[in-house]
Amino acid sequence: MRKKFDTEMSVRPHEVDLNGHVHQSVYFDYVLFARWDQMGRCYKMPMEEFFKRGYSWTTQSARIEFQKPLYLGDTIIVRTWIEEIKQKSVRVRFQILKKKTEKITTEGELVYVLISAKTGRPEIIPEDILEKYSVQQD
Amino acid sequence: MRKKFDTEMSVRPHEVDLNGHVHQSVYFDYVLFARWDQMGRCYKMPMEEFFKRGYSWTTQSARIEFQKPLYLGDTIIVRTWIEEIKQKSVRVRFQILKKKTEKITTEGELVYVLISAKTGRPEIIPEDILEKYSVQQD
Amino acid sequence: MRKKFDTEMSVRPHEVDLNGHVHQSVYFDYVLFARWDQMGRCYKMPMEEFFKRGYSWTTQSARIEFQKPLYLGDTIIVRTWIEEIKQKSVRVRFQILKKKTEKITTEGELVYVLISAKTGRPEIIPEDILEKYSVQQD
Amino acid sequence: MRKKFDTEMSVRPHEVDLNGHVHQSVYFDYVLFARWDQMGRCYKMPMEEFFKRGYSWTTQSARIEFQKPLYLGDTIIVRTWIEEIKQKSVRVRFQILKKKTEKITTEGELVYVLISAKTGRPEIIPEDILEKYSVQQD
Repeated sequence: MRKKFDTEMSVRPHEVDLNGHVHQSVYFDYVLFARWDQMGRCYKMPMEEFFKRGYSWTTQSARIEFQKPLYLGDTIIVRTWIEEIKQKSVRVRFQILKKKTEKITTEGELVYVLISAKTGRPEIIPEDILEKYSVQQD
Repeated sequence: MRKKFDTEMSVRPHEVDLNGHVHQSVYFDYVLFARWDQMGRCYKMPMEEFFKRGYSWTTQSARIEFQKPLYLGDTIIVRTWIEEIKQKSVRVRFQILKKKTEKITTEGELVYVLISAKTGRPEIIPEDILEKYSVQQD
Repeated sequence: MRKKFDTEMSVRPHEVDLNGHVHQSVYFDYVLFARWDQMGRCYKMPMEEFFKRGYSWTTQSARIEFQKPLYLGDTIIVRTWIEEIKQKSVRVRFQILKKKTEKITTEGELVYVLISAKTGRPEIIPEDILEKYSVQQD
Repeated sequence: MRKKFDTEMSVRPHEVDLNGHVHQSVYFDYVLFARWDQMGRCYKMPMEEFFKRGYSWTTQSARIEFQKPLYLGDTIIVRTWIEEIKQKSVRVRFQILKKKTEKITTEGELVYVLISAKTGRPEIIPEDILEKYSVQQD
């Protein structure tokens, strides 16, 4: 199994709705931040390096299950890992946990496609990136 | 097949990312607005009426497929319809189209659960709401 | 006095806070959308044309007075006009009105600086843009 | 002079615009989070305690000066302090600094009014809160 990485963050006041729960759309911002953070810190290939090499990532699809609400005041852990690598895309799974209880509140997955920043067309994931993305759980 | 309803809206400048594409999380805000708009305007049961009767809706799960990007300047149509009604939940499908071309750019679905606003627990959908939600395509 | 222009928009559900009021930060997104809309539709110089000519606008300062809250369900009018034109910047005033009552809920102003998109440095506003921005109230 | 408090946070990817700069509206979300964080952590009177006592805070006005842009990748310090206390309101000043350079990028102020959560009407700030808000710089 590929290695799982964690990013910690805090729920911010503008992210909660009328009922005091974090808005559904905000969960995707959390996961986006976690991936961005982990690309540099954990996979050792920050987003800027993709840009420099003429690449970008685009999201093809997403699914999410909201199991327990998140509230203002919660510190959360966004855990992500690569579930599957295809020629031009990766399938990333994620879980969002409350830091205090370590209970899972949310689960889901995203499919990201590597594209040429210039043409927007899908690109084959190069060998050296494949290798970085293949780091295994101890 | 149940009736499909349309809500028109404009992409706003703060909704686009570094590449000029609408952020992935914003799509859920679009669908949320469309549902809210259509609850009152199309199903004749606005959100406030749910609140008055002690109900609220919560999102159980969502999935989305990003087929073509949306850009600043786009006017979009968010089309939603109820695909399935269960005892305590509804499964809603949506499409996002560019108004100019009427081409579909995005598809997905959300499962909403009716809850008691007080306890947060799932509630059986009352008969009169079922009826309003059963309006058929002509 | 320079001409005032109006842009109409709807409050969307994800824009309200715990108290059902529109979040303070969202007001700036409303004004940004109104300016963007009015640049093309009213001043006949859309944002893309600025980009094409190597220009961009950056916000130097803003102030806002929240007089009455906005709620989900409100349709609003964002009215903006150019109060002052300097060599490299414009001072824009705005009002946000409820469409139904035409009452002002919010007032404020923003100072925008014309910059070179390449260097980020302030640029002198060219004659033809000055002219477009000088259209007077009838 | 009243004591200044710092809250650290990271710029998140969905917060940057087409030019890679943090959106103007996002700055207010940063300050809101900092105030919320500091209310509990620094002033020892968390927001929930205001709610429990039937109070809430509403923003009357805001002004902000954008001196240098913030970018994705920046870790920032939001520093706030109470500049003035009136009978029913406080004037709070803030600065946003880059953590790495400790350079100020943004300055501004907000006026918050204490209100009754029930009626929405301004309330006189009670003695014990005045005291908590009067903590002086060493």
